[in-house]
Amino acid sequence: MAHQNETNSAAVELPPIDLRSDTVTKPTGAMYARMASAPLGDDGLDGDPTARELEAVAAAALGKEAGLFVPSCTMANLLATLAQSERSEQVILESAAHMYVSERGAATFTGLFYLPVAGTAGAMDLDLLEDALQGEGLKLKTALVAMETSHNNASGAVLPLEHMQAVHAMASSRGVPVHVDGARIFNAATALGVAPDQVATHCDTVALCLSKGLSAPAGAVLAGPRAVIDRSRRFRRMLGGSQRQIGVLAAAGLEAVQVMGQRLAEDHRRARALSDALNKMHPEVSATIPQTNIVQVDVSRSGRGSAAWSEALEKAGVKARPWGKQRLRCVTHRHIDDAAIDRAVTAFRTVAGALA
Amino acid sequence: MAHQNETNSAAVELPPIDLRSDTVTKPTGAMYARMASAPLGDDGLDGDPTARELEAVAAAALGKEAGLFVPSCTMANLLATLAQSERSEQVILESAAHMYVSERGAATFTGLFYLPVAGTAGAMDLDLLEDALQGEGLKLKTALVAMETSHNNASGAVLPLEHMQAVHAMASSRGVPVHVDGARIFNAATALGVAPDQVATHCDTVALCLSKGLSAPAGAVLAGPRAVIDRSRRFRRMLGGSQRQIGVLAAAGLEAVQVMGQRLAEDHRRARALSDALNKMHPEVSATIPQTNIVQVDVSRSGRGSAAWSEALEKAGVKARPWGKQRLRCVTHRHIDDAAIDRAVTAFRTVAGALA
Amino acid sequence: MAHQNETNSAAVELPPIDLRSDTVTKPTGAMYARMASAPLGDDGLDGDPTARELEAVAAAALGKEAGLFVPSCTMANLLATLAQSERSEQVILESAAHMYVSERGAATFTGLFYLPVAGTAGAMDLDLLEDALQGEGLKLKTALVAMETSHNNASGAVLPLEHMQAVHAMASSRGVPVHVDGARIFNAATALGVAPDQVATHCDTVALCLSKGLSAPAGAVLAGPRAVIDRSRRFRRMLGGSQRQIGVLAAAGLEAVQVMGQRLAEDHRRARALSDALNKMHPEVSATIPQTNIVQVDVSRSGRGSAAWSEALEKAGVKARPWGKQRLRCVTHRHIDDAAIDRAVTAFRTVAGALA
Amino acid sequence: MAHQNETNSAAVELPPIDLRSDTVTKPTGAMYARMASAPLGDDGLDGDPTARELEAVAAAALGKEAGLFVPSCTMANLLATLAQSERSEQVILESAAHMYVSERGAATFTGLFYLPVAGTAGAMDLDLLEDALQGEGLKLKTALVAMETSHNNASGAVLPLEHMQAVHAMASSRGVPVHVDGARIFNAATALGVAPDQVATHCDTVALCLSKGLSAPAGAVLAGPRAVIDRSRRFRRMLGGSQRQIGVLAAAGLEAVQVMGQRLAEDHRRARALSDALNKMHPEVSATIPQTNIVQVDVSRSGRGSAAWSEALEKAGVKARPWGKQRLRCVTHRHIDDAAIDRAVTAFRTVAGALA
Repeated sequence: MAHQNETNSAAVELPPIDLRSDTVTKPTGAMYARMASAPLGDDGLDGDPTARELEAVAAAALGKEAGLFVPSCTMANLLATLAQSERSEQVILESAAHMYVSERGAATFTGLFYLPVAGTAGAMDLDLLEDALQGEGLKLKTALVAMETSHNNASGAVLPLEHMQAVHAMASSRGVPVHVDGARIFNAATALGVAPDQVATHCDTVALCLSKGLSAPAGAVLAGPRAVIDRSRRFRRMLGGSQRQIGVLAAAGLEAVQVMGQRLAEDHRRARALSDALNKMHPEVSATIPQTNIVQVDVSRSGRGSAAWSEALEKAGVKARPWGKQRLRCVTHRHIDDAAIDRAVTAFRTVAGALA
Repeated sequence: MAHQNETNSAAVELPPIDLRSDTVTKPTGAMYARMASAPLGDDGLDGDPTARELEAVAAAALGKEAGLFVPSCTMANLLATLAQSERSEQVILESAAHMYVSERGAATFTGLFYLPVAGTAGAMDLDLLEDALQGEGLKLKTALVAMETSHNNASGAVLPLEHMQAVHAMASSRGVPVHVDGARIFNAATALGVAPDQVATHCDTVALCLSKGLSAPAGAVLAGPRAVIDRSRRFRRMLGGSQRQIGVLAAAGLEAVQVMGQRLAEDHRRARALSDALNKMHPEVSATIPQTNIVQVDVSRSGRGSAAWSEALEKAGVKARPWGKQRLRCVTHRHIDDAAIDRAVTAFRTVAGALA
Repeated sequence: MAHQNETNSAAVELPPIDLRSDTVTKPTGAMYARMASAPLGDDGLDGDPTARELEAVAAAALGKEAGLFVPSCTMANLLATLAQSERSEQVILESAAHMYVSERGAATFTGLFYLPVAGTAGAMDLDLLEDALQGEGLKLKTALVAMETSHNNASGAVLPLEHMQAVHAMASSRGVPVHVDGARIFNAATALGVAPDQVATHCDTVALCLSKGLSAPAGAVLAGPRAVIDRSRRFRRMLGGSQRQIGVLAAAGLEAVQVMGQRLAEDHRRARALSDALNKMHPEVSATIPQTNIVQVDVSRSGRGSAAWSEALEKAGVKARPWGKQRLRCVTHRHIDDAAIDRAVTAFRTVAGALA
Repeated sequence: MAHQNETNSAAVELPPIDLRSDTVTKPTGAMYARMASAPLGDDGLDGDPTARELEAVAAAALGKEAGLFVPSCTMANLLATLAQSERSEQVILESAAHMYVSERGAATFTGLFYLPVAGTAGAMDLDLLEDALQGEGLKLKTALVAMETSHNNASGAVLPLEHMQAVHAMASSRGVPVHVDGARIFNAATALGVAPDQVATHCDTVALCLSKGLSAPAGAVLAGPRAVIDRSRRFRRMLGGSQRQIGVLAAAGLEAVQVMGQRLAEDHRRARALSDALNKMHPEVSATIPQTNIVQVDVSRSGRGSAAWSEALEKAGVKARPWGKQRLRCVTHRHIDDAAIDRAVTAFRTVAGALA
């Protein structure tokens, strides 16, 4: 059965190349098939069997005791925070982390203090982390340290495993648990050439997003110790994140975890191809050299800001997202094939010429 | 294509009659078909077209300006509260309301004070409400008044429209908005013989659950003034309730709103049949006379508690939920046909005999 | 040395009889003397020696391990709650308790759910308390049970010690601590003819107000286990309740705790005299028979509301506080002598005549 | 009448030179006199006349419409934040501000996000502030911008008035109010040679601590627009910061505001004398050149940490507070006369020699 979303690519007029985010990915045919046939139950009563299977499969893939299927990675991060903190404590995270920059509204619900630690390529400075953990005097007890890998704002940088190990050791020695916002942890693992659990071994809890490069329509999994997951389950219900026959969605998540990680290397290769091509266009644009599927393109030397570039690119058939005033973010994913990269590079060239 | 969940009823051994809740309902074939073909988009970027359609359709059905698709009715109630309150205010609700009894964990995230007003059949005493609204002196400003119809803990009682009108007028005269937890508002409308918007006209915001009698696998819609919905959308993202290609789920919700309401009268009729039959078994059990699809069965005169009854009934092939120590709750829904009612009555009789 | 506040009574024109509250009491001469000579220190650094002495003296009087001097009894209650709860829990209290009715703004800062239990004469119904403590299913864990004695809204009623013991036993058996809002616990002890620690033995933490009948200008003490007091001290600092050379105020509190309790029986005797005299004025007014220093006067049969009475009484030289629409509250204290009671009764008679 | 706290200086054995903080200052004789004779009232009912006078006097001195007397400057800052924010907003402040570093526990009660902006000598980088104020996309609305002058962690640095004006203009242009943590704003004004209202003109609300250099035993005043002060008064009561006959303390505050500011130049002169003398001891120690009454002494080149120095100095009769691992903080105040400075310098020399 052909799904409408699958047939988009057959359109006669070329659809725009959407490099704004890997969140735009649509479900695969296999996902639709699993969604149609998944056994269902009431996850508020006896449990939904497909959601349970996904939780078990994802927890195993991440090397954790238990998992919890949640509506989004934002909720997974929020639950990890709620379940591992008490009132009047603080969370320490890298100052450009998505949880710090974009999910700061969580403070509304947690009442925690979010203490940023400056970092390089997404990795917190360890001396500053040590200071932050001290928390003497009038400061607050640290409930949680959070890392992010791959790191969205650091252009998809992957945290070195030794860094993660060092952070984990430093926090653990003070009895502080470590959370990893692993929205793109499968990308990180792919780049490192290890299995995801080899990355997640350096933390207590980890959030995995199913709807980015892994292409599920929605959902995320929080994985960690059973006691933390049990507390998270309670908080999930309070937040309204508990759902009934949610196996219809979890089924797509199963395909995401079991199958879709295998193709991420392809996205990384294409991101690198895009970056290489753009860097040959010097001096108008300068692209980061991606470790994963995210390229940031600095357009400041072109004399035009990111908004102007974004608008002009869109007219040329390419969507790229302004990332601050001088940068665009381009993300590769399963709807971006080699031809799309070529078209994107051409569009950049066209715009560079037009703006010159 | 036959879906696994549709074929359950074809099993040779009779499946248990599950009267615990209408949340156990599984998606219909039509829902699966719509889920497979729904146009999708990124609801975090341009919006998901199917979610937008559902929001518009549900808002229209409820007579409201705008709608918001959310993971659950609990989240819809939480968002209505967050979006219509400021810090240091209070919410007034009937003392047996689901929002008061079962969703009280919301206080964790809102920091509001929840002031219960005693009621009869789910309807707040208006004199007590008047007192509660006064809020002089050291008391708090009231942010919101909430009603629930049909009323879960009041055995599915339907609020009279004049009562709703009176509450709405009383609150509005003080500038206080009114929210209706309409998890089962389609049941209320069916019982009243009016369209849902005739019920929802007596409030500012209303939450509609798609996964109870309406049988969608999951999800709810919050409807109300556009400004409130816009604020709710912001809070939804902060809570982690925003999702990407969520049209896969919204598609089932569209079927729920557009089609499934038409069959609720059937559930009501069967609930009444169950009640009538049980009340003929006097004096062991005494059933409430249902206005909608919920029957509470008082087993106190049988000399056995609700837990013992529930256990014995389950052995006889019927699942009913203990509701306190002396009552069972039985809920009819689309998987309960006339034969199931007969089997349920037989099981009650068997248990009554065995316990005697 | 004559203090201005002491010489008020020497005024030629008779000052109004202020029965609104025992909070209007001014410091005694002995308090001024102790305030002038108290040893002081920085309570944010080494500790203030007078505050420490007060904390020790009050803790001993209440039979508790440790004490904490705080700006007000409201803060003492708030700290007891914060220090004995975690996020997402609930507090159970009698539905007319001051903490429930007038200090509900605390929810803003604690994020807790406040669950009221109906009571008689300030004493919670024990069956309802048992139910409330169950907290199964979707309900919250109970962090704290709170009582109030003497009970302000119950016209100064004193909780029977057996009731307190029963509540304490019921809560303790579930591991839930009990707090007593003992703003007027010295009045309760006086009425019961026992020492305050005999009352406070039926709770874990207790708040004592120094500025009501005990006449200190301001301040309260929270007493309880050292670990709870230590947590409270941290929260006190966060709230801004920590002060520097606060011994100047604690000195008055020492006089309050060590000396002023001895004269409360006098206030109780005069409250009874007022009540008796008013009840002879039937049918215009009906006064509660006080156990302590609070009399509520029902004026509903006079055909005029409490606001009209309050206004008329003030013109006749007596201040009494409307307590709802049909009652006045009259509180005796050290500025109310026998002559003042006589004048108050005369004023009530005058107003009753004028309103007739 | 000689007060015990006044006669300390008459002790035969020399008391330690306490340079830890200007919070150690004890009330003056004039303060005691005013405390003994201040007219009092119930600040929870009709208002306390002395507290009202202090509020008016302080508001006038700071050029603001209204004032509120509170137990501490921490509470003043907390109230300014609560009264000028709504749920789900953020506060922007300099990253070394006392409100950020030491009062971060406020997040527990406000649920706000505290966004630090790096600064120099306590003054936020204006470009970073501009960025922080943007708050697009997933970021939060800014409720408040806060400055601190003189700046405790910046060694008592005084914000240039042009800087304050620029910050105020930048925030105001976006409709964001500005708060000044003016715990030591009288020191700032003294250093700038202007009246305090010339400093406070560059903000909407300002907190003034009465118990630092101004020597009142305790208390602070929050000043600002009447509407904000009214909201603050409500929050003060909820926090338990409202007190009854608090004029006994406010009386000392009146002396602090009306008289004690005049002698702060003396403290500044002595701080400079201390700094100059210590800087002549190079290379063991290096002192900041104070603008006000705070000197930070870097001992890192001595080969010993701040804790060792602090201990050794105490044995030599001087108390100084470790400020991180390599610095001591020395604060001058009214108990530090010229002789005390000489003794302190001698002690530093002794310790430097001993540690060498």
